[in-house]
This record gives sequence, C-alpha cells and structure tokens, in this order.
Amino acid sequence: MELWYTENHTENVRFSIKVDRHLTSITSEFQRIDVFESYEFGRLLVLDGYLMLTEKDEYIYHEMITHIPMAVNPGIRNILLIGAGDGGALRELCRYDCIEKIHLAEIDKAVVDTCKEYFPKLAVGFNDPRVTVYYEDGLKFIRDKVGVYDLIIVDSTDPFGVGEGLFTKEFYGNCNKSLAQDGILINQHESVFYDEYADSMEKVHEKISSLFKIAAVYQAHIPTYPSGHWLFGFASETFDPVKDLKAQQWNNLGIKTRYYNTELHKGCFALPNNYSNLR
Amino acid sequence: MELWYTENHTENVRFSIKVDRHLTSITSEFQRIDVFESYEFGRLLVLDGYLMLTEKDEYIYHEMITHIPMAVNPGIRNILLIGAGDGGALRELCRYDCIEKIHLAEIDKAVVDTCKEYFPKLAVGFNDPRVTVYYEDGLKFIRDKVGVYDLIIVDSTDPFGVGEGLFTKEFYGNCNKSLAQDGILINQHESVFYDEYADSMEKVHEKISSLFKIAAVYQAHIPTYPSGHWLFGFASETFDPVKDLKAQQWNNLGIKTRYYNTELHKGCFALPNNYSNLR
Repeated sequence: MELWYTENHTENVRFSIKVDRHLTSITSEFQRIDVFESYEFGRLLVLDGYLMLTEKDEYIYHEMITHIPMAVNPGIRNILLIGAGDGGALRELCRYDCIEKIHLAEIDKAVVDTCKEYFPKLAVGFNDPRVTVYYEDGLKFIRDKVGVYDLIIVDSTDPFGVGEGLFTKEFYGNCNKSLAQDGILINQHESVFYDEYADSMEKVHEKISSLFKIAAVYQAHIPTYPSGHWLFGFASETFDPVKDLKAQQWNNLGIKTRYYNTELHKGCFALPNNYSNLR
Repeated sequence: MELWYTENHTENVRFSIKVDRHLTSITSEFQRIDVFESYEFGRLLVLDGYLMLTEKDEYIYHEMITHIPMAVNPGIRNILLIGAGDGGALRELCRYDCIEKIHLAEIDKAVVDTCKEYFPKLAVGFNDPRVTVYYEDGLKFIRDKVGVYDLIIVDSTDPFGVGEGLFTKEFYGNCNKSLAQDGILINQHESVFYDEYADSMEKVHEKISSLFKIAAVYQAHIPTYPSGHWLFGFASETFDPVKDLKAQQWNNLGIKTRYYNTELHKGCFALPNNYSNLR
C-alpha cells in the first residue's frame, strides 16, 4: 500500500509526501486538522489541507520568527503571539530567561490540543509558567491593548480562510498601538515566488510600511513550504533589524540553534533584486 | 486531459508539474533528454528524468554560478565551463565585455542542440565569438591544461550518472592545476537537506577544501530544485569570496540581474548552523 499526502502549491504544481499513517483528523469549529506520520519528514500538521509544519524542518521557521527580534532587542520582556497554536515559536522564546510574560492568542483550541498530543516536543512551551493562552480571535484580542508588548509575532496561517483578517491594515494598526514605543512586529509573509501569493504579500508589506517607521523583509529556506523561499516581515519604530543587531550579546546567551546564527541574521535581509517591491 | 511531470526528490517525496505538451524526447549517446511545456514554469529541460532547469527560475542558478566569481575578481579574462550545455551560464558570462575567451566542455552535443532549438533565449551565448565549444568529457579535457584559466565553473548534473566523475578529487585536483595562480573554481554543490545528497556533498566540500587554500559554500533559493535550498562551492588560492568582493566595481558595470546583487553576495555565504560541515 502507498499513501500520499499532496499539497497543491498552485493548480499546476504539486508537492507530495509519502505517509505511513493518518494519525488523526478533527473538524474543529474553525478548520479541519490532520496529522500524518511521514517517512521523510516525521509528523506533519495539516490545516484545511495546507501543510503547516513537519517535524524535520519546523525549526527553521520557528527559529527565524523568534531569534531575529530577540537578537535585535535583548530587552524584550513581554510578548504577544498571535496564532502560533502549534507551540513552535513558544518553544524557542521560552529558552530566554529574560522574558517575563508571553501571551498567546490562538483562535482554535483544537490546534493546541492536537499539538500537545501529537507533537509533544514542539508544544513543550505550553507548560512554561510565563505563558498564558487565550483562545480568542487575535484580531479582537489586540483591540483594547495599548503599549503593552515589546514584541508581537503574527504566526498566521494563510491570507485566506481562518487567518485572513491577520493580513489587514486594521490589524497591523492595532499591532502598532499594542506595542511599546520600541516594540517589534514580526509577521509571517509567505512566499512571493508564485503569482497568487505575490500580490497579497506585496500589499501586506505596503500596509506595514505605511504604519511603521522601519519595515524590512527577511528570508529563510523552508523546504516543505511552497517554493521553499519563505519571507518574514520585521517592523519597528525604533530598531533597524541589521544595524541594531546585538550579535555579541546574543551569542553570549549560549542559545543553541540549528538554523539561526548572527551572521545569517545579517545575510537574510539581503533580498534578490526582483523582490525590490518588498524593500 | 491532464499531463504531469513528476520528479522524485527522494523515494518518499515527489514534486509534480502540470505540463501542456511533451515537446521532444531524445536518447543521446549519454542520456535521455526531454523538453516539456509547462503551465507554471514555462519550458522544462529534463535529463535522465531529473529536472535540470525551468524557464521561470533558471536565472537564479545561472546568475549565482557566474556573478559571484566575476564580482570577486573583475580581472577574469579566460574561462572554462564544464557541463553547462544548456547555455545559461554562458549567457550570463557573455554580458561581461572584459571576458576574452570562454571554453565550454560539454560531453553531450545533443544537450546543446536541444537547448538551441527549444530554449533560444537561454542558448544565446553560443553565438558569441569569444566562445569555443568542445564536445568532450570535461574530466579528460582538463587533464593537459596548466595554469590557463582565471575561472572554472563546474556546472554538472548530479553526483551519479553522466556527471559522476565531476565530483571526484582527481577532477578537482586537475581543476586546481588548470587554474591561474589567482584562479577561482565554482562548483554546483547540490542540496544537503535530503540525506542521500548530504553525505556526498560533504565529501565534495572536503575534497575541494583539501586542494584549495580558501573553500567556501554559498546558497541560493531555487524553487524547482529538491528542497529549494541549493549550494555552490567557491574555491581559490587567493580570493576570499566576501572580503575580496569588489562591490562598487561590479555595480559600476551596470549589469542588470534579477536575483544577484552585491548585498545578497555577502549574505549568501552565511550558512545555517547545521551546515557547519560545509565551513
């Protein structure tokens, strides 16, 4: 028997992973959640048919969405994660002793419960006493917060479906308002290689740029995401992501990473020429 | 009707591209050569079943294999390309007025003929009067050359099949001997994300490192190659690929590129931590 999970990266491009077993399939109030055991990538988390993470390469995404801001501002104490119900970003952040409080606003409790059960190593941060989980819509959660967070990470799904509202100007405006004066916003930015994502991501970058003094885009190689060339947004009123990198200070923390390092930090903001709309 | 070209990235991972037509299929003395017209990526060149290039993203590979050395040593005049029968690397190099002579050693004339017919924009460099094509095995071609090239680019296929010999220590030793004292060797290095390539590429890096004073690995995002995280080797007795970058001088040439730029040049040598075997 052969069992293959296939994601359509576009209607003309398919990425298929041979799986051993379909471990669970849940239909929550918000979405369908599937977990597979694969041969090549370990376990897969799939939301509404889209591959969210694999055990083999999730560390790249989660290291890059967290250590970049932490190495720019070692003074970060209070953090809001929006989405991030798989726990990966949380796991990385909980390695910093200096962090005091992490709020996580995830709309779908079923994602957290599924990850606790099927990805225990990924979900380890949910046990950290500094963490409070709010099962709420991030869009609403953020509306009445003013100047309270040093870092907001928008670990959204895709610019359609459940996560759609997390790509709007109203939302990014509320993020700005919720951040302390020297706060940093990190946003998962998809890939712009395939046309259907390129437009929406260029608009997202425009929206963020219009709201923050400094807005930059950085990249990582994430093999199991469409095109493998994944982007993140960095926005701040205060910090330049490269000039303000505290490389020595970050390296002194002794945090072991598999992808991120402070040289790569500088390099990942150097985008290809044809990404000039994201500058 | 639906027609899909599928490449197995490993036995458990498949990448599939919807194609409109199978334009040609030739069995040469050395390999099977196929050309497809696809919806997403334009035309595809496939050798022995492996995707060699697509019209949509070939520029990334060809810019990165050529402009990196040219921006480190603007004094490059004489070049040897090994493999490279598709003409992509040639096209990029022919944009430099300063280059005097390019030898191209391609074992399979059928690849060149196919690319001239089906990829005329890619193959444009074959008309340049500075270019001489030798339909010979690169391994043998290089044996009797001593100190004649400023740059050798090994644009091989894969470390198995026709191109296998281009990944051996004997061959890299001959490259070293064929280079001028300040020559540069560029080698396509595959990806190390999937285990079956990782070992052979780490060995290749070891071999090159044992032969050259300076040996570095750099990376590019090439969406249609396995994992999308592609590597190249840079080796020289003289030049450090980052410290010796002549950014201003290269930018003054006014060569328009879509992926490469001199900031990205510096960034692409910053590898992830778990690639430390390639440092």
